[in-house]
This record gives sequence, C-alpha cells and structure tokens, in this order.
Amino acid sequence: MVKGGSKLTYRFDEGDAGMRDLLGGKGANLCEMAKLDLPVPPGFIITTEACVHFFETGGQVPEGLWEAVRSNMASLEESIGRRFGSQSSPLLVSVRSGARISMPGMMDTILNLGNNDEIVHGLASLMGDERPAYDAYRRFIQMYAGVVMGVDSEVFEEILAREKDRVGVSLDNELNPDQLRGIIEQFKAEVHKATSSAVPQDPWQQLEGAVKAVFESWNSPRAVSYRDHFGIPHHWGTAVNIMAMVFGNLGDDSGTGVLFTRNPLNGRKELYGEYLVNGQGEDVVAGIRNPEPISTLARQLPEVHSQLSRVAQQLEQHYRDVQDLEFTVEGGRLYMLQARNAARTVQAAVKSAVDMVDEVLIDESAAINRVNAEELSQLFVPRFDSEARAAKVSSQELLGRGFGASPGAATGKVFFDATRAAEAGKNGTPVILVRPETKPDDIHGILEAKGVLTSRGGVTSHAAVVTRGLGKPCVVGCEDIQVDLQGRRFVAGGHTIQEGDDLSVDGATGEVFAGAIPTFQPDLDELQEAQTLLSWADKARRLGVWANADTPLDAERALAMGAEGIGLCRTEHMFLGPERVPVVQRMLINAQEAERWEAAHPEAAVRRAASPELPVGVNEFYNALAHLKDLQIADFTGVLRAMTGRPVIIRLLDAPLHEFLPRHEDLLREVVEMEVRGAPQEERQAREQFLQLVESLRESNPMLGHRGCRLGLTFPAIYEMQVEAIITAGAGLIREGVQVHPEIMIPLTSHVNELSRLKEGLTKVADRVQREMDTAVGYLYGSMIEVPRACLTAGEVAGHSDFFSFGTNDLTQTTYGFSRDDAEGKFLATYIQEEILPANPFATLDPDGVGALVRIAVEQGRRARPDLEVGICGEHGGDPASIEFCHREGLNYVSCSPFRVPVARLAAAQAALKEAAGSS
Amino acid sequence: MVKGGSKLTYRFDEGDAGMRDLLGGKGANLCEMAKLDLPVPPGFIITTEACVHFFETGGQVPEGLWEAVRSNMASLEESIGRRFGSQSSPLLVSVRSGARISMPGMMDTILNLGNNDEIVHGLASLMGDERPAYDAYRRFIQMYAGVVMGVDSEVFEEILAREKDRVGVSLDNELNPDQLRGIIEQFKAEVHKATSSAVPQDPWQQLEGAVKAVFESWNSPRAVSYRDHFGIPHHWGTAVNIMAMVFGNLGDDSGTGVLFTRNPLNGRKELYGEYLVNGQGEDVVAGIRNPEPISTLARQLPEVHSQLSRVAQQLEQHYRDVQDLEFTVEGGRLYMLQARNAARTVQAAVKSAVDMVDEVLIDESAAINRVNAEELSQLFVPRFDSEARAAKVSSQELLGRGFGASPGAATGKVFFDATRAAEAGKNGTPVILVRPETKPDDIHGILEAKGVLTSRGGVTSHAAVVTRGLGKPCVVGCEDIQVDLQGRRFVAGGHTIQEGDDLSVDGATGEVFAGAIPTFQPDLDELQEAQTLLSWADKARRLGVWANADTPLDAERALAMGAEGIGLCRTEHMFLGPERVPVVQRMLINAQEAERWEAAHPEAAVRRAASPELPVGVNEFYNALAHLKDLQIADFTGVLRAMTGRPVIIRLLDAPLHEFLPRHEDLLREVVEMEVRGAPQEERQAREQFLQLVESLRESNPMLGHRGCRLGLTFPAIYEMQVEAIITAGAGLIREGVQVHPEIMIPLTSHVNELSRLKEGLTKVADRVQREMDTAVGYLYGSMIEVPRACLTAGEVAGHSDFFSFGTNDLTQTTYGFSRDDAEGKFLATYIQEEILPANPFATLDPDGVGALVRIAVEQGRRARPDLEVGICGEHGGDPASIEFCHREGLNYVSCSPFRVPVARLAAAQAALKEAAGSS
Repeated sequence: MVKGGSKLTYRFDEGDAGMRDLLGGKGANLCEMAKLDLPVPPGFIITTEACVHFFETGGQVPEGLWEAVRSNMASLEESIGRRFGSQSSPLLVSVRSGARISMPGMMDTILNLGNNDEIVHGLASLMGDERPAYDAYRRFIQMYAGVVMGVDSEVFEEILAREKDRVGVSLDNELNPDQLRGIIEQFKAEVHKATSSAVPQDPWQQLEGAVKAVFESWNSPRAVSYRDHFGIPHHWGTAVNIMAMVFGNLGDDSGTGVLFTRNPLNGRKELYGEYLVNGQGEDVVAGIRNPEPISTLARQLPEVHSQLSRVAQQLEQHYRDVQDLEFTVEGGRLYMLQARNAARTVQAAVKSAVDMVDEVLIDESAAINRVNAEELSQLFVPRFDSEARAAKVSSQELLGRGFGASPGAATGKVFFDATRAAEAGKNGTPVILVRPETKPDDIHGILEAKGVLTSRGGVTSHAAVVTRGLGKPCVVGCEDIQVDLQGRRFVAGGHTIQEGDDLSVDGATGEVFAGAIPTFQPDLDELQEAQTLLSWADKARRLGVWANADTPLDAERALAMGAEGIGLCRTEHMFLGPERVPVVQRMLINAQEAERWEAAHPEAAVRRAASPELPVGVNEFYNALAHLKDLQIADFTGVLRAMTGRPVIIRLLDAPLHEFLPRHEDLLREVVEMEVRGAPQEERQAREQFLQLVESLRESNPMLGHRGCRLGLTFPAIYEMQVEAIITAGAGLIREGVQVHPEIMIPLTSHVNELSRLKEGLTKVADRVQREMDTAVGYLYGSMIEVPRACLTAGEVAGHSDFFSFGTNDLTQTTYGFSRDDAEGKFLATYIQEEILPANPFATLDPDGVGALVRIAVEQGRRARPDLEVGICGEHGGDPASIEFCHREGLNYVSCSPFRVPVARLAAAQAALKEAAGSS
Repeated sequence: MVKGGSKLTYRFDEGDAGMRDLLGGKGANLCEMAKLDLPVPPGFIITTEACVHFFETGGQVPEGLWEAVRSNMASLEESIGRRFGSQSSPLLVSVRSGARISMPGMMDTILNLGNNDEIVHGLASLMGDERPAYDAYRRFIQMYAGVVMGVDSEVFEEILAREKDRVGVSLDNELNPDQLRGIIEQFKAEVHKATSSAVPQDPWQQLEGAVKAVFESWNSPRAVSYRDHFGIPHHWGTAVNIMAMVFGNLGDDSGTGVLFTRNPLNGRKELYGEYLVNGQGEDVVAGIRNPEPISTLARQLPEVHSQLSRVAQQLEQHYRDVQDLEFTVEGGRLYMLQARNAARTVQAAVKSAVDMVDEVLIDESAAINRVNAEELSQLFVPRFDSEARAAKVSSQELLGRGFGASPGAATGKVFFDATRAAEAGKNGTPVILVRPETKPDDIHGILEAKGVLTSRGGVTSHAAVVTRGLGKPCVVGCEDIQVDLQGRRFVAGGHTIQEGDDLSVDGATGEVFAGAIPTFQPDLDELQEAQTLLSWADKARRLGVWANADTPLDAERALAMGAEGIGLCRTEHMFLGPERVPVVQRMLINAQEAERWEAAHPEAAVRRAASPELPVGVNEFYNALAHLKDLQIADFTGVLRAMTGRPVIIRLLDAPLHEFLPRHEDLLREVVEMEVRGAPQEERQAREQFLQLVESLRESNPMLGHRGCRLGLTFPAIYEMQVEAIITAGAGLIREGVQVHPEIMIPLTSHVNELSRLKEGLTKVADRVQREMDTAVGYLYGSMIEVPRACLTAGEVAGHSDFFSFGTNDLTQTTYGFSRDDAEGKFLATYIQEEILPANPFATLDPDGVGALVRIAVEQGRRARPDLEVGICGEHGGDPASIEFCHREGLNYVSCSPFRVPVARLAAAQAALKEAAGSS
C-alpha cells in the first residue's frame, strides 16, 4: 500500500533516468529527455507504487490519485496551450503502460483519449481536415472498448471490412468523413450490444477508465506468462504514462520520422533516418505512404533539421551510445517521442564503439561491452560480394530465409545425402549439404561440406551446433524450402534445385540463393576496428584464449585469429587419411599376435624394430607402427613449428579402435550376401575374418567403452609410438633452433592410477628418444578431465598432472547420462522445446551439474598443485556464457575452434569487466 | 637406532599379548601363554627395535645384543634342563621371524639349531635313536646353508632324491643313519663348493648367523612386495623368536598334535583334534604317518590329556574365542607351541558365537562381529545332501574344484551356449551353464540356469558378480576342466561331460561333481542359531534392509529372509514374458500413429479407451496398452499383497524400447537373405518395415540413450498406464482391507524438471483412479539417483521427491565413464589384475568417486527435505563393504537380492558396532 503523503505522480520534468523502478523504463527515459530540456511533449507518470496499491487493495486507487492527475493535466494544458475536454482547442492524450523492464506488446495502451462526439469537431478544425479527426475518434472508440470495456475487437474489424467492401475501397484512409461517421455509429451500437453501456463521453471518465485498465493489464494472462518466462517478479507493477498527443499531419510544416545518430548498418558517423511529411507513423505501418530520407527534412524545414541534429548529438553525448530516436513535427515545432539505444549490425557496433573511444565519449571497457561477442564471429568469416548479392535479390533468386545458425557465406553444389556429399567433397567439389535436418550419422558429409542448409530445426539443432564448432556457414529451419530426398531435389520460391545445382547460403543472415555468388574473405584492413577492439579485449581479459587445431593449416589460422596456444590437437584425424587407414588396419589385424609375442619377448617391445626374422604378423605390426610413427613425426613437426614458442597440447589416441575399421553392419551385409550367394570359400574367408576382428572390437556403448587411456593401458604400443613421435618431432625442431612446448594429454582418466601407470612407460620412451637425439625436450604431462570421477578425485589426479584440460563434451554426456548422438536424435529437441532443460547443455555449459564438477576439480586440483594449468577444450570453449563461467571459476584458458577465437577473446574480456563491475 | 640402555630381548615371561609392536605377533602370543602359566617351551624374543637398528646402521646389531642373548640362553638352559652346545644333554633351538602382523611364509625360520658333528651323537642318545638325530642334523645344514649362506636348496633336494633312488627307498625316513651320514657329507661338500666355506660347527656362531639372517629376511623381495600389496609399512622390522626345541619323537610318552577348543566344522562344544604318538609334525606333513583322533591321547596319557583340556578351556576363556592349539608332549611333559583364534566354517562361527553368548563368555555385539557377513549367505541357500556328496567323492566323481563364487548347490543338465541354455531352461529343464567365462551377452542363459560354472576368471569376474546378485550358485576359475565349445563337452578328471549330461556344482566350496546330487533347502530349525544371531543384528543395526524383488514369489522369499520392504520392483520383466512381448511389440509398432493422432485429440489421451471407431493403428495401440495394464494390475496386486504393510518401491519402465524388439543384427541378416534369395515382395515388406522400426529405435550408446524418464516424457502413455495400474492395484487391495505402501520411482533423473513435469501428468492419473475407485491410496513419489547430475543438484531434485534411491550400478558406469558390458569384456579384468583399480567398482562401491557423489546427494537432499527417505538399490546393497559405506553416510536402508538379505542385516549391524567402537 502506498503510504499516506507519498508522491503518486511525476511530471516529466520531475524525474530522471535513475527512477526506473518507480516510473518504469519508458517514463524514466522521457523524464531524462525533459531534464535535458529537449522538446518532449508534456506529460506525467503515475508511479508503479500506485499500481501495486491498486492490486493490494483489490482495485482501489490510492487516495488523492485523481486529484494529482487533474493537477498534472492542468500543467500539461498550460505547456501545450490546448485544453483537455475543450471543443475549440482540444488536447488529446495517450495513456501507456511502462514497467521497469520493457515487456513489448504485453500490456495495454490507449491513444487519442479525450475525444467525444463534440470535441471531434474542434479537432477537425485544429487539423484542418475532418477525415483524420474522425479516424482518430473511430480508433479511440475501438481501443477503449477493447481495452477498458473488454469488447472483442474482432467485431470492429469486421464492421470496418464490411464498410470498405460496401463502398469499394481497400485502405482505411480512403474512407471519407461521412463513411467514418457511419462506422462510428455502428461501433457504438456494437459496444452497447456487448456491454449494455457506452464509451463515456466525459474525457475525465475516459481517463480514469484508461488508467485502471492499464493497471489491470499488468496481470493479463500474456503478461503473467511473459514474466514467468523471463523471471520478472510479479509484484513490481506497471507505471502509467500520460502524454499530450502531438500530430504530424497538420500540414506541410508537420511530419514524423525516425533517426539514428550513426549509421546502424556500418557504424559511420552520419545521421541516418527517414521522414514523412504531413503524416503519422501509422500511415507508414499501414503501408499507405513511403517515408523519405532524413535529408528531406533538411530541405523542407532546415531550422527543425538543425535542431534535430543538435538534439541527436546531445542525446548521443548524454547516453554515450548510438541512439534510435522517434520524433514528430507539429506545425514546425519539434517533439521528441522516444530515445533508446540503437539496434545495429555487428560491423556498426564495432566501428561506433571504437570511434567513440577516439572521440573520448567512452572508455575501452565500455567499447568492449558494446559488442555482442557471439555476433563478432560474423566479421571473420567469408561474405558474399554485396553487389552480386543485390543482383540475386533483384533477379528473384533469393529462395528463402531461415535462421542464421553459423555465420559465413558459402557457395557450392547441392547434395542431399551425407555420403554422396562427402565423396564429392573429397574429390574437390565445393559442396552445400541440404537436409531436412542433420543427425550425428551425417558428420562425414558436414565435415566435407562448405556449408549446410536444413529445412527444420532451430539454432540449437545438431546442424547448428556442429557447424558453429567447425566455423562453417549454416542456415537452419528454412521452412521456405521443401526437400524431396528421394528425388534429390528441393523446391523453393518457384525454383527447383537438383543435386549438383549451384546454391549459396549466408549463415549470418539466414538467406538462401539459387546459383553461385562470389565470396570473399574479409581482409585485415577492413577489420582494423575489430582488431583494435580485440587488442583492448586482450588487455582486459584474464583468461587465455587457445584454439583446437589438428593440422599445421588449422594452427596457422588459429594464430592469425589471435590464439595463444593449441589447447587440443587431436590425433584421430592423423589416423584417418585414405592413405593411412590401410596402415592402421594392418596394425590392428596383427595386434593380438604381436601382443602375445611381446609377452614372451618383453625386451623386444622396448624398441619394436621390424625385421624379416620376426614372425610374419609381428613384423607386419612393427612395420605398420613404424610407418605410422613417421607420419606422426611429420604431423607433429608441422603443428609445433607453426606454433613456435607457444604451448601445444597433443591428445594421445582417444577413439575406440573400431572407428578405424569398416562399419559392422556393412561387413555383415557383405558376408551374409556372400553366404547366400555361395561365394567361393577363399573369397569369403578373408571377409569373415575381418568381420570377426570387427566383432571382437564391437561395443554396446562405445562412448563408455574401450577408448582413451584404457586403450593406452591395454595396448601400450600405440601411445608409446605417439610419444616417440612427439619427442622426436620436438627434438628435431629444437636442433633447428625452433622453440617448442609440447604437452602430452592422456584422455578419459577416471582413476589416478591410469595416469601414473602410463606415465611410467611413456617417460621411459621420452627419455630414450631424448638420449638418442641428445636433445632435451621440455614437455608437460597432463590429463583430459572428462568423466565425473576425475573431477571428484582431482586432488589425486593432480598429483600426476602438470595440467588439466576439461573435455566438457564428454563430461556433459557422463554427468547427465546423455549420449549426445542419441539424445539429439531422440529426446533433446523435446527437452529444449518444452523447457525441461533451460538450454542445450552441449552448446552452453550447464553451470549447476557439469559446472559443479568443474568447480570441485579446479578447487581440489589447485589445492594439490597450486601451479596446475587448467583449461577447457570442449565446444563450450567458444560459447560466451560458458567462457564467462570459465573466467569466474579461475581457469587459465579456454580453447575453441580457430574461427571462434575472436569471440572468445571478447567474451573473456567482457567476463573480466563484469566481474570487476560486480566487485567494485 | 636403539637408544642406549633399551631392553633388546624379552623372555617369554617378561612380555604379554599387548606388546605386539615390540615383540611381533607370534612372540607376544607366546608371552601371553607364559603369563598364564601355561607350559610353553622356554624362549625369548629379540625386539623389532633391534631389527630396525640393524637396518639403520647398515647391518650392525645394537651394542649388548649378543650379551643379552647369551644371558637369555642361560635362563633357557636352566628351565629346560639341557645345555646349548652340550654333547651329553644338548639343547637345540628354533629361530623364527615374527612381525607385528602375520606375513605367512614371507620371512625365514631355522630349526634344530645348535647341532654339529659332535653334538649329533649326544642328540641320538637323548632321542634313543640315531636316525631322527641325523635327520635333524641333515635338515639343519640344509636350512642354514639356504637361509644364512644363500646356497640354492635345490642342490640338496637333488642329492636327497639321488640317494633315495640309489638305495631304493621312496620316503625320507626310510634312509638309515649310515645313508644320512653319507648325505650330510655330500651336503657339506656342496656348501663348500658353493661358498668356499662351511656351516659353522660352533653353535653360538650358528645362532648369530641365524639371527642376522632372520633380520635380513624382512627385506627379501617377496616380503617387500607382500608389504607393498597389503600396505604394511616397511619400517616396522621383524622380531626374532628363539625357543627351545622340544621333541615329540622320544618314545611312546611323547607325541605331537593340534586341537580346536570347539568343532571348527559345526561349532559344537567339544574338543576336536588330532594326535600323533611318538612323532613330529613334519612326519604328518611328509605323509609318513597318519595322526589319530585326540581321544588317543586320552587313552595313552590321561594325565596329559586332562591337562591339555584344562589348558584349552583356559585359553578359550582367556581369549573368549575358539582356539586352534599346537602342542608337543616330550617324555610325558606337555608343551604348548601355539595358540590362535581358530579358522572355522560359517556354521561353526555362528553356533560358537551364539553359544558363547549363552555361556556369558561374550556379549551379543561380540557375537555379531564373530561371523563373516559375506559367508553368512552360504547358510541360506540350497546345499547338497552330505551323504550323497560323500558318495560322489568316494566314487571319484569329484571332477575338480574352482573358486566358490556364489554360494548354493545346484544340479542340472550341462549346456555350453547361453541361447541353448536359455531355451532349455524356459522349457523347464534344470540347466547348468558351463563356459570358459561369461560375458554380458550370456545374461539370458545365466538368468535361466540353476547354476554356472566357468573354467577361467576369479571371484570378481562377470559370472561371479552377476550370479551373486541373482543368488544363484556359481563356481568360477575351475582350471581342472577343459571346455570344448565346438564339441559341446568338457573333459575333467578322466570324465567327458557332454551337453545334456547331469552335473552338480557347489558355489560355496567350489566343488564340481559328475552326475546329479540331491539338494535341499536348509530348514529354519537348522538355522535357529543364525536366526538368533540375526535378531541380535537387527537390534544393533541402524540401516534398514530391504530387498529387490520383481514378482510375488521373490517378495515372499525376501520377507522370509527378513526384508523390511521392497527397494526395487523392476517393471521390465513384466514386459518380457513370452505372452507379453507380442503385445508390447504391437504397442510399439503403432506408437507413432497414436502419438500423432493424440496430438490432434488431446482429450482422448486422458483415458485412451480403445474403440473400433478409432483409426486402426490408434485402436491397436490402445488395445495393447489396455492389455498390458490388466497384466500390470495383476503383477502389482501380487507384490503389494505379499508385502502387506511394508513399503514397495516400483520403478517405472527404465529399459530402452528396442530391448523389446528382435536384435537389429538378426533382423538385418534375415532381410539381406530375403533380398539375395529374391523372396516375394509381400513376404519381405513386413520384415523390412519391422527392420525400419528397429533401426529407428537403435542407439549408439543405449545405456545413455532414450530410456528411463526420457521415455516417460517423450512417450507418456506407458508411464501413465503403469501409474494407473499401481493405483488400481493399491485401491483394490485397500478395499479388501490390505494395507499397501506403494512408492513410485522415476528412473534416470538428471534434471529436476524431468521429475516435476512427470509428476504433473502422473498425479492427474493417480487422482482420477482414486476418484473413480472412491479410495485414497497413500503413495510416495521419488527418484532413482543414478547419474552424477542428479547427485550434484540433489537439493533441487529433493524438492520434488519423497525419496531417493541410489542406482549405484548406473551411477558407477556414469561416474567412471565405464560401460559395464564393455568394460568387463575388454579392460576391467586387466585393471583389477594389474591393480590399476583397487577393487571391481561394480562389486564394491567406490568410496572416493561414486561415494563422493552419494555423500553430496544425501547432504543436499536432506538439507532441502529433512525427512527424505534415502536408500540404495544397486547390487552394492548386498556387499558388506558397501553396506558399511551406506551406514556411515546415514542412508535409511539398503536393498539387495533376497538371498543376500541376511548378509546385509549382519553387515549393517557390524557397521553400526564398528562406528560405536570408533566413537567410544
């Protein structure tokens, strides 16, 4: 309840921007403009406290409210020079809601209030035209009856439509005053029919009804569920803004417009906006008239234009940010109706932020906070040539628009099947993979594609998440296209696109074009402002930003993007090239024989030198291993050289061995076919044996199976070969004078003993190579932390680790008990759509579950080993919310895909600034 | 280092049982007997401190040690009446190691010390026979040369074997004195050859050498690795026990024997032992002579026998436990050589413990601690008729012996293949499944078998762990049998057993017999003492003990075993009977159609009434669902009725749907065969469609896939049907006057929203049924806690749970990131064998990782909801170490298989007593 004597209303010149809680966001902003002596139409605000009182007392307004309203209305009349309820010089007002936080469209507004059967005549003479006056009256009745009296507005629309039909016009403003008067009569009859009463003629009664209705609208079902959704407290209540209506349609010295203080597309420092002479905003919305560039105002009313320019500058200076302004000119007099921070493209955000630092308007920290980190990635990826794009739009080749899920522009040949796409991609064809939606099975196609387009799914769908991780353009949920998988084609916007046809997709805008469009990689000059901003971010952030990169090319790209190290160099891909798979398979086929033989000849296992004198299988095994070692030495040399002087974390083989063999299903099908066909014994035998090998390596739950360090412990030859290759590569480079910092990472540790046992054997190998090459290679040894048990026993694990790297993908899988491959195809979409989960935990790190484990691990690990290096290398490393989490938890670095390094640099800086702001 | 003036030696009458640290276990026990004035041969102990000094100074004995030894030897000579080094009445001594904790066989001992070329004559006249005197000398040389001088004993055994061969005898004691003298000469030559020196003739020199050698043996490689294995500190050192040798072979008034103070087989209160007239223990070991029952001593030397009886009673009273005694009678004089707590069968342990309480020797708590909880289960499972078993042994049909992995006796027909075993079992044939080892794939065969036998694997192998959980007899690692899977037979002990032959296995003893042996279930009368002990345990324990039971029969068995509730009633089995699977499949095939239809007709989904007016698939679906509901009502009625008045936790469907369909592989094979054969279109189509359904439900990692509550949320019809069945069953029983306490458990919760969403829908169903049946059913609603995230957010989860039940099987899988099915076949055996893991985490709950999560969950859960009921229903619920953990963490109950309920009751009591002892 409002305390007796509390102030219930504030004139615009009595409040300021700091009074948002009491006056609502809109009201506080209008006060701020009034305080700056800007030409705001006069008005006042009823406080949120009055609204709260209204609910607490079951619908009573606080004592003295109406008196206060009347007194404010008197001031208002005085400043505008017209009177509420007057026929000769009538004042109309708008009555709008306004909560602390904007809840767009959720509450009610009534315009043109203060009109009635008599006043409308005076309004007509004020406007110099009957039509707009009657139209305003018609609108008022419709709005008031709907909002205040609860009449279904549907009936008014029907009357209007019927009448236009009858007189043969199509637009509202083609109705003449007589016709409008007829409609008003019908409206009144309808109101009477529905409510047995009428819209009050008394303007004061109108005003009271409107104020109460705006209060009530705080508790409308849609407002309540909106607050539920966004977690806005229900007890706040809304303020009510009452403002004099001003009219832009009173002649050629009137008009209405919008203005940006800088160009919202590119950020250039120039006034950018539109102006409609002798019109109202509604005319634009209704599509009746097209506005002209703001320069029109300069030509028509140069005085007003220069006043507006000064206002714009003043507001930008005042708010220290690009402003989006709404204004009306009534009879040569400028009125500012709204000022708010302008929405802008990421280019504009970067440029204006950097410029404003140059202009000493804001400091570097403010500039860092001006740019959305997620959007920043758009600047660093390929784009379409803008003229070529515009030509496509003109030639009606814009096929549709979906969600831009992963920025960047791509052009290529359409394929509808991941396997065919992968084959074409490997043969050098630029491929756009088009699917209704993608599944984990499609990964080979996605990897080879230049871009991906789906007709279903949102920005957390499989396609979206995977491509963002890969820095590959992707448009999802483009419902404009109908995919016909059987026919290998899709239909959209009258075009039919067949397999092999050219297609272009823009993963930032979500646009899909028929045909090819030249793309270009933004050059560094163009990105100068972004580089400047990122250099400030680098000073502000505490988190390191590293990249995940498996090849020298990836490593170079990562460096160019500003990565300070490689947080994850996977070695699986090194086993997967078409020339390598047969070698790996030769190794696996002979592994058991070699293992048995080594058990009897442990001394031979120290070096594993191939020799024709060995048993055939053992020799084959050693040969294959030696071959792979040479390939890996070259791999590691390349990556370490590219990252000279910087740390490179190399993860030893993690994938289960069956990933290097054909799919069980395919082999089974082949063998059954041979059986049924009665293929010759010899032909069958080899495939059957191969099938047996595949079956012996098959697993019920490969994700939780024989992989990672479990493989390293039961099958030591591979890890020993990899470590030999890493140290050999490192020593070779050091002898060339290149600085290297390899870090050897053991995947999937669940018990400290796994780590300590492996360390024993691998250290021997590393020592031997260093001795033989007579070169010391400084290397670290650490653990990938990706199962809960490693987190829960992190103190022990840290005893044998120089570093921890959180593999948050697998950690999320094991913490939730979700298999990502299965979840995404089966139930995760439902979980996110129905808000069973607040977010996709594979996109944004779950702070409560997975995050709790990270916290435990960091705390225990650092206690056991204060200099422990701790980072994260899952896909979360490129997600701003997850980066903020990593910052808060005191990690040393995040590692993400090269394309997301700029995002991570900025997000890390924003996290640091947020923390500083919170603690100051 | 020993401080100057520290006492280095203790006569047996100077120490007591409390001085174990200083005198070693053996020495302290001998002192205790001496203190009780029992006839112990005279002797003394060199302290462990002297040994520690020896190592710290690099092999120096503390100053004054030899002087102390000589002075002790003088006392010793005096009390025995013979002299060390004397020819006429020689005293020989034994020199033995003795650490704080027994390290059996790890350190060295030298017997018969004090002999030489001269003294042996005197010994011969003392013994009245040259042969034993020279044999003792021969043994001394061999032992001394081996232990003190490091000569390989192999050479002495070779000489002995050669000589026996030459003279044509087979036993050592058939060698005459001349032959023994010849052997002694050869021994001496061999010692000289190996060491260029000789076994000293001077008894004092012998003694010094022996003492030092015993010290040294503390650091023998086998002793060091034994200590490493059992975590015994290396700095403890060993004491040295020097004791007069007494001889049981000096005539008919001499002898040697062992005695138990109660029967160690059945626990009856009677002296039980063996006696060998005029002999030494070695004669028994060497198989030369067979001992006679202890009654022989009563006949021959009634005085000595009654003295021994008194000693036995005194020792039992003193130690308040059944004693295992070793004694020697030398010339009518009794000497006690050892007293220790007797090893005994679990029957004997139970009976003697209960009797001792009656005798007011010990209290109930002590009795509870006397019985090994794990072994207790042996009493409650079927056993072989003992006469029939003995007959099998006599007829040489005992085929071999493995590890008793899961107690109980079983007899049946042998099968070597899980699928054939399962088929035979379903047809009513009693089956014994025989495999080299079992794998998760064999589970269907294990479930249908009466017993399991493997030739490989230990007590933590797959077969062992699974059968223990099922309470099914199992023998593992029986290396006496050779399994020929192809030939469907095995060979053992000269028998060949074919598929279908009768076989009997005893899972307690590990025995395997050819043919059938009648088994019987122990009746309650026989178990009276066990019941008494368990009733004490019930008073002592704080933890509740519930059982996992899926059927009324299981529930009754659980009750009989003392279960206080059902902690886990799985509903999967209820979907799996041969008459049910087709109904389930009918439901699944039509599920998608029904789902789409329901989306358009939400009102129909409230009741799901089948009707011929519905679309065919929808009607089919509703029909199948109704059919299943009727079956489930009957299931739940049976279980709830069996458990009248006690809680029954019913877990809603957890298994992924594909478990109710044929295996993908089999269907694929079938379809490919049809294709290649060119089967008619119609024939193929049905199977192809079925294959498509199976493929759509297939998962990469089913353990982490679309199961548990994920199914409940995406496919609500099944859970709603189950809840309807539970409440219908409960209401029906209440109307009959039966008390029911159903608890509905949601499996696999990872986020609180899963629980709250389901609750909403299921509560509506439960409300409707109660309304329709006009009966209130009190039921609880709770969550199975089996993924880490549920533990980490337990406070939230508790907000919507009346109870938590830890599913520690899955929680172990997710915490380690181990798929049990894959781990056990692939790497877990290696991990346990090489001690990478301290124990199999699926058998004993991992206290550091999984345990940490349990702790977090209990703490958070109880904080949010102080009356939260918390239990565990994984297999760990029947494992004593895990039960102790659950007690410590304050859980309300453990739930285990019915057969393990007695184990759990006892283990829970022991845990409570241990805690009380620790805190007092």
